[in-house]
Amino acid sequence: MQLDEMILVSVDDHIVEPPTVFENHVPKKWADRAPRMLFDPKTRLQTWSWEGGASATPFICAVVTLPNDEWGYDPSTIAEMRPGCWDVDQRVRDMDANGVLASMCFPSFAGMAGTFFADCDDKELAYVSLQAYNDWHIDEWAGSHPGRFIPLPLSAVWDPQLAAKEVRRVARKGATAITFSEAPESFGFPSIHSGEWDVFFEACCDEDMTVAIHIASSKGMSPADSDMPMEVASTLPCWNALPCAANLLWSKSLVKYPNLRIALSEGGTSWIPGFLDRMERQFHVQKWVGSDLGGLTPTEMFQRHFLACFICDPSGLLLRDRIGLDNIAYEVDYPHSDCTFPKSPEELWEHIELAQCSDSEINKITYENAMRWLRFDPFTHTPREQATVGALRARAADVDLRTTSKAEYRKAYESNYGAIG
Amino acid sequence: MQLDEMILVSVDDHIVEPPTVFENHVPKKWADRAPRMLFDPKTRLQTWSWEGGASATPFICAVVTLPNDEWGYDPSTIAEMRPGCWDVDQRVRDMDANGVLASMCFPSFAGMAGTFFADCDDKELAYVSLQAYNDWHIDEWAGSHPGRFIPLPLSAVWDPQLAAKEVRRVARKGATAITFSEAPESFGFPSIHSGEWDVFFEACCDEDMTVAIHIASSKGMSPADSDMPMEVASTLPCWNALPCAANLLWSKSLVKYPNLRIALSEGGTSWIPGFLDRMERQFHVQKWVGSDLGGLTPTEMFQRHFLACFICDPSGLLLRDRIGLDNIAYEVDYPHSDCTFPKSPEELWEHIELAQCSDSEINKITYENAMRWLRFDPFTHTPREQATVGALRARAADVDLRTTSKAEYRKAYESNYGAIG
Repeated sequence: MQLDEMILVSVDDHIVEPPTVFENHVPKKWADRAPRMLFDPKTRLQTWSWEGGASATPFICAVVTLPNDEWGYDPSTIAEMRPGCWDVDQRVRDMDANGVLASMCFPSFAGMAGTFFADCDDKELAYVSLQAYNDWHIDEWAGSHPGRFIPLPLSAVWDPQLAAKEVRRVARKGATAITFSEAPESFGFPSIHSGEWDVFFEACCDEDMTVAIHIASSKGMSPADSDMPMEVASTLPCWNALPCAANLLWSKSLVKYPNLRIALSEGGTSWIPGFLDRMERQFHVQKWVGSDLGGLTPTEMFQRHFLACFICDPSGLLLRDRIGLDNIAYEVDYPHSDCTFPKSPEELWEHIELAQCSDSEINKITYENAMRWLRFDPFTHTPREQATVGALRARAADVDLRTTSKAEYRKAYESNYGAIG
Repeated sequence: MQLDEMILVSVDDHIVEPPTVFENHVPKKWADRAPRMLFDPKTRLQTWSWEGGASATPFICAVVTLPNDEWGYDPSTIAEMRPGCWDVDQRVRDMDANGVLASMCFPSFAGMAGTFFADCDDKELAYVSLQAYNDWHIDEWAGSHPGRFIPLPLSAVWDPQLAAKEVRRVARKGATAITFSEAPESFGFPSIHSGEWDVFFEACCDEDMTVAIHIASSKGMSPADSDMPMEVASTLPCWNALPCAANLLWSKSLVKYPNLRIALSEGGTSWIPGFLDRMERQFHVQKWVGSDLGGLTPTEMFQRHFLACFICDPSGLLLRDRIGLDNIAYEVDYPHSDCTFPKSPEELWEHIELAQCSDSEINKITYENAMRWLRFDPFTHTPREQATVGALRARAADVDLRTTSKAEYRKAYESNYGAIG
C-alpha cells in the first residue's frame, strides 16, 4: 500500500460552532433564552453566552493554516480562523484536501463533555438547549454531507436518567455515538463507580451506541503545579485516558454491560501496553484483593470495551500487537494545534513505515476499526475508489492551503458576511 | 548470558525501620522528643510516634513470603513480617537468596519524601531527627554491609536551604544519592517551578549526588474518584513519574544544572517512549510557545538527566532504544507487594528474553547504569564472579523461602526477642 491508497476515517475532530446552532432547533417558548454568540467590539471577544454562563474558543483550538506566531490562548472569533473550522461545506473541502474521508466532530464552546449546558441552573432550559445542539449537529452539520461525518451528539452529563433518555432520542435520529466525561465526579456529578451511570450505559447498549470520551472532559484531573509552564499544561491531559480507562475497567459496569463500547478519544495509545502489563500483573499477584472481571483478564476486558484513538503515536504503533489490532483508530484533530493539516496523511505514513505495519493493519487502524466500533459505513455514499487519500485530494486541488493570517481571514470573512457581530 | 550470570543492583527497595533508628544518633538534649516505635497491646498497632504525629506501616508494604490472603492495608508490626524487612543482616541474606548484589533502600514510616519529619512544628527537632535518621541509615543500615547498599538519606523537604545543607552534610559521609518529592508543592512546600529548589539542585551537583524521586512522594497527585476500588488506587500512582518528569524537564533548573541526575524511582519505563514522542512533537509544532531547553531537544534533555527505574515493565524493555539504553535501571522493590521475591531474577529474565536484549543491554540495565548514575561500585567489596545471581544464590541455599504466616513469624520473633512492645 502507498500513502495515497489509505482510507482515513478520523474519529476525533472539532467543530468551532457557527452562530446558527440554535436558530432552527429551539422551541419558540425557549428561543430567547438559548445560548447565543455575542461579539464585544471593544474587547473583540466572541463568546457563547446565556443565563448559564459564557464560553469562548481560544485560538489554539482553531489554528489550521494560521502562521505559528498567531497561535495562542486568546479567544478567537470565527472571522479570524480558517472557514473550515465552522463552515461544514468548507470543512468537507478541507477533509478532501487532507485526504480524510470521514470525521467524528467534538464540540468547542460546549466543552468536551457538554458541561456548558450543565452549568445552567434551569435544567429544563439546559436540556432543551442540549437537544437543540444535538439536532443541529446531527441534521445540519453531519446531515449536510452524508457519509462524511459520524454524528456525535452530547450527553446530558449532569443527570444519568436524562442522559439515558437523550441516548434513546438521538439513536432514533441515527446517531451511533455520544460523548461522555472522563471523570463525571470532577464536576460534582455521580462518579463512575456509583452505579448511577448504569442507566446511561444500558441505554447505549440497547441502542448499540458508542460512548466517546475525549481527554480533558473533566475538571482538574491532571496533576498541576500552580505555576507550571505551558509545555507542562498542554501535555499532561494527554494521559487523562489512563485513569479514565482504569476507573471504567474496574467499575463493575463493564462486567454488567459486555456490549458497551467506549472510544478513548485523543487518549493516545502509547501508554496502553504498559497499562495492560500493570493490570495483568496486579490481577495475578494481588489475589487477596479478590478482583473479578467476570472471568476475563484485564487485557481481554480492555479489548472488549475500548477503542484507543491517536493523532500521532509512533511508540503506540510499534507495540500495536500489545494493544490489540482491532482496538486502534486514527484521528486528525482538525482544527486544533495537535493536527498537522493539510499533511496528516504524511505524518501518519511516516509512523506506519517506522512500525512496518502490514496493509491489513493499516486498514484496520485508518478506517476499518472506526467503521465497526462506530457502526458507520461511508461506502454507501462514496465508492471505495473515490475514498482514498489520493482520490479525495485529487478533487480538492483548488483548495487554498497557504499559510494565512488572522487579518487576511477577517478581511475575507467581512467581504463574504459583513462585519463580525 | 544466562539468568544465573546476571548481576543485579536494585535501585529501589524499602526498609521497614527497626525500633533502633533513633537510639544512637540523637543528641541527648533531644533524645526524649525523637520519634519512637510504640506498640498498643489493645489494638496490636505498632506506630512511630512523636509530637509531629504518628505513622504506621501497612502489611501491604511488607508482604514477602506472607501467604497472599494475609496481605492487606492493616498496620503491621515488625514481629509479623519476614525479618529481612527490618533486620539488615537478614536483608542481606534475602538479597543473596534473590540473587541481588546491591540495593538502594527507601524508607517506610518516614514517607517516600521524608515528610514524616516535615510534619513536626518544631523545625529544629525535625532537622535533628532527620539527621539522626540519615546517620542511622548511612552508618548502621548501609554501613553494616559495605558494597551491598547504596546509602539513601532523606531530604529536608520542607526547606530548600536546609535540604541543600543536608546534601552537603551527607555527602561528607559518603552518600551519593538523596530522596526528594515528586511534587513538593502538593505538601505546601515551594513548587518545582519556583526556582527555590535550585539551591538544593546546586548542592546535589556540587556534591555529585543523585536526586532519587520515588512515586507516591506527593499528596493527591493521582486523579481519584472518591469511591474508586483498590485496583484503581493501587495502579494510578505508578504513572506519577510522568508529570514529575514533565515538570522537571520544563522547570529551567535542568538547563541551569546540566549535571543534575534524577532517578525516577519506581517510575516505570513503558510511558517514556510516548512521553518523549509527545514532547518532541510539541517542541517542534508549538514553536509559538518559545520553548527553550538550552539548545537540546526534549529527548536529549531527558536522557541527560533522568534514570528510569522499573520493577516489571516488558513493554518498556521492548522499546528500550526509544528510552535510552543508558537511562534504564532495574528495581526489586523488596519487601512490597510489587516485588516478586524470591523469584525476581526469573521474572526479569522472562522479559529480557521477550525483548531479546543483548548481553551488553542486560548489563547496562541490571547494574552498569545503576553504578554510573549512583556513583556506586560494589566490586571493590565483591569480586564479579561472586556477584552474579548464581553465585549469590549458591551461598544462600539455607535461607528459608517457604510461605510463612504472620503467626509463625510472630512466634519466631517472640522466641528471639520476647513479646512485642
